Amino acid sequence: MSDIEISRRRLLGTVGAAGATGIALGAVSGAAGYVAAAGDPATALATVGSASEAFHGEHQAGITTPLQSRGHLIAFDLAPGAGRKEAVALMRRWSATAARLMAGEPAGDGDTGVALDAGPSSLTLTFGFGRTFFDRTKLTARRPVALDPLPAFSSDQLDPRRSDGDLWVQIGADDALVAFHALRAVQKDAGEAARVRWQMNGFNRSPGATAEPMTARNLMGQVDGTRNPKPSEADFDRRIFVPSAGAEGPYAWMAGGSYAVVRRIRMLLDDWEKLPLKEQEQVIGRRKSDGAPLTGGSETTELDLDRTSPDGTLVIPANAHARISAPEQNAGAAMLRRPYSYHDGIAADGTPDAGLLFVCWQADPLRGFVPVQRKLDRGDALSPFIRHEASGLFAVPGGPGSGEYVGQRLLES
Amino acid sequence: MSDIEISRRRLLGTVGAAGATGIALGAVSGAAGYVAAAGDPATALATVGSASEAFHGEHQAGITTPLQSRGHLIAFDLAPGAGRKEAVALMRRWSATAARLMAGEPAGDGDTGVALDAGPSSLTLTFGFGRTFFDRTKLTARRPVALDPLPAFSSDQLDPRRSDGDLWVQIGADDALVAFHALRAVQKDAGEAARVRWQMNGFNRSPGATAEPMTARNLMGQVDGTRNPKPSEADFDRRIFVPSAGAEGPYAWMAGGSYAVVRRIRMLLDDWEKLPLKEQEQVIGRRKSDGAPLTGGSETTELDLDRTSPDGTLVIPANAHARISAPEQNAGAAMLRRPYSYHDGIAADGTPDAGLLFVCWQADPLRGFVPVQRKLDRGDALSPFIRHEASGLFAVPGGPGSGEYVGQRLLES
Repeated sequence: MSDIEISRRRLLGTVGAAGATGIALGAVSGAAGYVAAAGDPATALATVGSASEAFHGEHQAGITTPLQSRGHLIAFDLAPGAGRKEAVALMRRWSATAARLMAGEPAGDGDTGVALDAGPSSLTLTFGFGRTFFDRTKLTARRPVALDPLPAFSSDQLDPRRSDGDLWVQIGADDALVAFHALRAVQKDAGEAARVRWQMNGFNRSPGATAEPMTARNLMGQVDGTRNPKPSEADFDRRIFVPSAGAEGPYAWMAGGSYAVVRRIRMLLDDWEKLPLKEQEQVIGRRKSDGAPLTGGSETTELDLDRTSPDGTLVIPANAHARISAPEQNAGAAMLRRPYSYHDGIAADGTPDAGLLFVCWQADPLRGFVPVQRKLDRGDALSPFIRHEASGLFAVPGGPGSGEYVGQRLLES
Repeated sequence: MSDIEISRRRLLGTVGAAGATGIALGAVSGAAGYVAAAGDPATALATVGSASEAFHGEHQAGITTPLQSRGHLIAFDLAPGAGRKEAVALMRRWSATAARLMAGEPAGDGDTGVALDAGPSSLTLTFGFGRTFFDRTKLTARRPVALDPLPAFSSDQLDPRRSDGDLWVQIGADDALVAFHALRAVQKDAGEAARVRWQMNGFNRSPGATAEPMTARNLMGQVDGTRNPKPSEADFDRRIFVPSAGAEGPYAWMAGGSYAVVRRIRMLLDDWEKLPLKEQEQVIGRRKSDGAPLTGGSETTELDLDRTSPDGTLVIPANAHARISAPEQNAGAAMLRRPYSYHDGIAADGTPDAGLLFVCWQADPLRGFVPVQRKLDRGDALSPFIRHEASGLFAVPGGPGSGEYVGQRLLES
């Protein structure tokens, strides 16, 4: 055991073993819903560093895990000449690294030391396969229809160099150095097998910044995520995850998995911030202060979509973002939005290069993201203030069983 | 009072009034030293959001304030045609905004709402003047000698577009949205008076990520800041702050102030991470695991600079970073290093655009940063792994008294 390993273990010993305690904490926070800070504030705050998420399980971590305060998204393409064999070895390396890091252990020999002193800090690593992965590995017959390219939307201004990719990794943690440490470990593991295609950084609220757990806000200042499906809802699993029971056929390897749609959505903040509060609220259809619908109540009150003002106009305008994206306006289409905000300083045109790393999860993109985005694309009052700049769609297999690596059921069956 | 203001106040009411309680917390954490997470972990964690720093006082906040987990640096140039009058109005606006935001209140009408729900989260805004500010405002006679340009160092590869500036603002907070909110408020206040010259984002460890407060680590994995002067040391104030007592003459306006040297130091992580641990430790002169000198002990043990190995070589090599930068090797030159790490994704050459937003504070740069950097420039073993890419030097006046704005003693005397 190296000096570094001893030091890390010693630290973790002082806050509780990373194994049983950590996983139990993860399970508890997972049930608490999609809020920026997990669980009861008094206890959550004492466990920022020591909280850990389980690597093994029916689903990969990082999907129902509460939003972490720091995130990285990174996509790779397999190197020229690399195929299925190299992909198997890579997924083995990545799985072993993820299991270690998520338990608060170093990555192995040559660990950079950046995460030393800290606990796992709810670190998650989540792995997905892009459409192009299947041709490269001669697994085209097993490529799910759900990975067919997303339709083009009229408002898209996508940069192909920051879109798609053979492989995708989502990293989240409640400490920026723990997240960066994991990012570098993933890059190191890629070795000669895969090359970075694009990489983005994001953030959310810090645990304990609010007095109690609250729905996240985005960089426009809006409460964002109120209508997200909740794990406590009866149809949550069916909507978010590919069914595990009775899976057969060429896509059986996706049992317990989910599809991630990733969109880099630039917010045109210089324009948005010039809009008076009342007009911003008309665009969204909700109050900025607390996220309540313009038809009244609190954040979680249902939208009263038919209510009119004395002058006969709709209180929640016909093109309000909340109306157009409401599940009941989209045949119940539902996706679990789990975004990070991003801010990469100032763009060449002098405006803030900031917005949302939108990541949403669903059992089928054609019944989740696509119909909602198609509708938003046609008439969302928010459209003039945002710009979709990059896009990706990834098949994220179920969580690995004990002794398994992520994607084994695809790569070795 | 707007909806937003009511909402914010209501929230703060649940965690203690932002005034007396918050300022008291700030004072406590300030005394705890320069660690990533402030104070006793059990209580610090419960106060991430509600902790606040005082805007008024002998010194500006953000100098001896414990490192926050998120930071922004932004520099402005006065707009063409703008002079002293516009500068006065701008410093008044910025001071009013800083006082409100640091107390957890909205910025005023048109607040973006991004910080809603959160407490002040130890937010600090710190304002400085660059050398060029004094000519623009016809205050050249009051420009301190200490603002003379830094000498050129042989290893500099400075980008002038990301260096210097008439005005500089350092923002820090323990929540990324609170920090971003402040950044946008500062930009809005600039209005037509000043234009953004450059802007950078940084981060440190999250409160509670370590089981107890620890010295920060940088993205090379090194413990960084062990030898920082401590406020408990008798000569701390003399080294860091311009004396307040008996200040006279053209620079009297700097009483209680400090000089900030800002360097964007790129870390060549692809090269560094290939270096074996033992060689990394020879470069630094300290163990990576716990920051202890290679001559033994713990992090805070003195370096034994004369100790040799049985083969006659120095245990802490002659060119080790810790040796060359040691105060006792630099006639006691001391500066308070208070950096943020940065990571802006992947640079055009495929390497990580990451490193240190080095910010150091001293009463006189010619007795702080300059002699140490000159020595490092000649023989630091770390030099091949870093690159200074931007530089700034700013006069940061003392903290404002009640009813004063920052810089008033310069601009109105």
